[in-house]
Amino acid sequence: MTFDAPTIIATKRDGGRLSDAAIDWVVDAYTNGQIADEQMSALLMAIFLRGMDYGETARWTAAMVASGERMDFTDLRRDGNPLRTVDKHSTGGVGDKITLPLVAVIAACGGAVPQASGRGLGHTGGTLDKLESIAGFTADISNKQVRQQLCDIGAAIFAAGQLAPADAKLYALRDITATVESLPLIASSVMSKKIAEGASALVLDVKVGSGALLSSESQVRELAETMVALGAEHGLPVCALLTDMNSPLGAAAGNALEVAEALEVLAGGGPPDVVELTLRLAGEMLQFAGLDGRDPAQTLRDGSAMDRFRALVSAQGGDLSVPLPVGKYSETVTAPRSGRMGDIDAMAVGLAVWRLGAGRSRPGELVQPGAGIRIHRRPGEPVAGGDPLFTLYTDTPERFESAMAELHAGWSIVGTSPVPRPLIIDRIT
Amino acid sequence: MTFDAPTIIATKRDGGRLSDAAIDWVVDAYTNGQIADEQMSALLMAIFLRGMDYGETARWTAAMVASGERMDFTDLRRDGNPLRTVDKHSTGGVGDKITLPLVAVIAACGGAVPQASGRGLGHTGGTLDKLESIAGFTADISNKQVRQQLCDIGAAIFAAGQLAPADAKLYALRDITATVESLPLIASSVMSKKIAEGASALVLDVKVGSGALLSSESQVRELAETMVALGAEHGLPVCALLTDMNSPLGAAAGNALEVAEALEVLAGGGPPDVVELTLRLAGEMLQFAGLDGRDPAQTLRDGSAMDRFRALVSAQGGDLSVPLPVGKYSETVTAPRSGRMGDIDAMAVGLAVWRLGAGRSRPGELVQPGAGIRIHRRPGEPVAGGDPLFTLYTDTPERFESAMAELHAGWSIVGTSPVPRPLIIDRIT
Repeated sequence: MTFDAPTIIATKRDGGRLSDAAIDWVVDAYTNGQIADEQMSALLMAIFLRGMDYGETARWTAAMVASGERMDFTDLRRDGNPLRTVDKHSTGGVGDKITLPLVAVIAACGGAVPQASGRGLGHTGGTLDKLESIAGFTADISNKQVRQQLCDIGAAIFAAGQLAPADAKLYALRDITATVESLPLIASSVMSKKIAEGASALVLDVKVGSGALLSSESQVRELAETMVALGAEHGLPVCALLTDMNSPLGAAAGNALEVAEALEVLAGGGPPDVVELTLRLAGEMLQFAGLDGRDPAQTLRDGSAMDRFRALVSAQGGDLSVPLPVGKYSETVTAPRSGRMGDIDAMAVGLAVWRLGAGRSRPGELVQPGAGIRIHRRPGEPVAGGDPLFTLYTDTPERFESAMAELHAGWSIVGTSPVPRPLIIDRIT
Repeated sequence: MTFDAPTIIATKRDGGRLSDAAIDWVVDAYTNGQIADEQMSALLMAIFLRGMDYGETARWTAAMVASGERMDFTDLRRDGNPLRTVDKHSTGGVGDKITLPLVAVIAACGGAVPQASGRGLGHTGGTLDKLESIAGFTADISNKQVRQQLCDIGAAIFAAGQLAPADAKLYALRDITATVESLPLIASSVMSKKIAEGASALVLDVKVGSGALLSSESQVRELAETMVALGAEHGLPVCALLTDMNSPLGAAAGNALEVAEALEVLAGGGPPDVVELTLRLAGEMLQFAGLDGRDPAQTLRDGSAMDRFRALVSAQGGDLSVPLPVGKYSETVTAPRSGRMGDIDAMAVGLAVWRLGAGRSRPGELVQPGAGIRIHRRPGEPVAGGDPLFTLYTDTPERFESAMAELHAGWSIVGTSPVPRPLIIDRIT
């Protein structure tokens, strides 16, 4: 059977189903450069608007896994026993620095986290961008080093590199062609990378709300169910928590600002929502790893998680004794009157942080490690007129105007506290 | 107002309307290379699936006209009188060589036809590909030469070049991304080129049937009405004939084969449908040019149209004394039994001719001037078992198999003649 790109694009354009053989060919031909970017982006838009059923999504995922290597850690041993590997993935939120303390907590409890991670695009930050605000830190480490760190420290956070290269190419294309927010494309992207990564189990943090990729809760639920099913097909047990992303997580958004907040959590403090979500996700991961006798909160109190984080950073070249970068310029938004802080909109904060220079508008762009926003009053907290509410940081002060414009519609001073929303909405396995 | 491509793509993706300013920006930025091909193809697919209303289509057309120069022949004089310029455009059919005799007929009647033409893509041939099968013929002539030929001969057929460069770039992209068959994109593509071309009036041959770009008659009707309205907005009077394209026109499809058939018509013979359509379109054009006292059929009988055609070819470097190329290899399909020739499907013949090498699958590809199909029995004609029905020509005999496969489903021997369809379905002004 021979295929050509225009015929396959036309099939999906007209609402048809892509055969297994067509999907295999498309993913392989695109990875190898036989299908041009402009043809793939037309197909992505057709998929965005016409959808893919579960069978198509599963085949697409399998083809992306097959486009690169698949790691395997089942032979690793610590003290003669098999390593209990488990990973976590978030579908992306504003102020979501959970991976940083979480990885260290699991390591401190005796687990091992092989985390292939990405750089951020659009309004949500990437874990690698955050870690790279630490002087010297590198995510470009060899497979051999990943395996060594898993044994010695219990964690490695590395650039996806050879894993699912089809996904890496597609993700960059989707970002500039307005084809990111598609259920089958999100599900196959996340799961192909995580299946190829080789952890024994996966906990997903699937975001719901204004700052999430998909806005309706029913769509997010279907996304979570799809990803759980895709994992099962490849022998990867998956548990998904649906969590709130209407407000930013914690009190800081931006690369170095989020590392600083993660360090607060690892030191036993930090914002309560960041701590709560870290411990809930840790509970799920420890259960998968057969380590549910361990108390993750204890590792934050006794400093053992902080030790693991420092060891991880140090093993990957990072130096936490160098002060974290802070944007050269800052501006502070103060309260126009007294009252209580109302809801803070995650999307508004995310876009403002992006405008300040913390994110990219094209793949490969440099990000400002010191750009971002500190949130001084969380929703429901009392404020007096003139109190500082937000401080914005950037190295390029001409960015303040557009960032302020994004932020402006995202908060208000109210008379009575907004009704608090639960952070954890549901659990899907 | 600043724009970015992903936001505009997302607007159309979600079913929104593109503002005038957004359309101006997109067309200009794409022409100048600020918008990447992969972004434009995502937008084209969104337009294909979500549509554009008349206002968007009109603005898109105007922006494409403005992307290049607009020619103007109103200053041209012959014998002291203004030249009466009028052009014709066909939305593309199989075996459609009408432009060749038609241009000569109008010139012989005292009109002048400035025809900016294109090369073929997909299953329909391009007028330039046909003419370029004549030894030495070139369509790359200067504006000065176009003007000179209009005065001296009454016709010039030239590559669109500087006219609506946005359309040229978009057309090549649409062809490889399965976004050709879209009403607003077809209408804006045709009319931007024809408005920029500078003729005083335009007759459209809008095809209906299996071999046409749009398959439903109601869509074709809307396409014709849209193009008439777009012309009016730019001061270009347009008359559209809706004509049948369920069967190929004439008895030959392929570049040199069609030139040969055009020469038969110019010599006073040729297939009756080609002659009929040539004369009907000529009648409309002569009316626009104020030359409706002239009898176009007379120019075919008295050789004056042939003289003009020879003068046109010669002015553009062509040498009709060199024999037209014929494919080195041929195969003939014979009748499996006696009866009458049934309907011949235009799309099947068009795809077979394309497979034989007469058309392109990528822009810029060379076409085989001698490849094509001769049709020996027209629908309704009696056939005896063993009679030749089709002869296929190509320089690359390995193409016969796939061409035969395309052709096979497109004809049959029947007991009673198929009901003849009228060639001219409607007239829209």
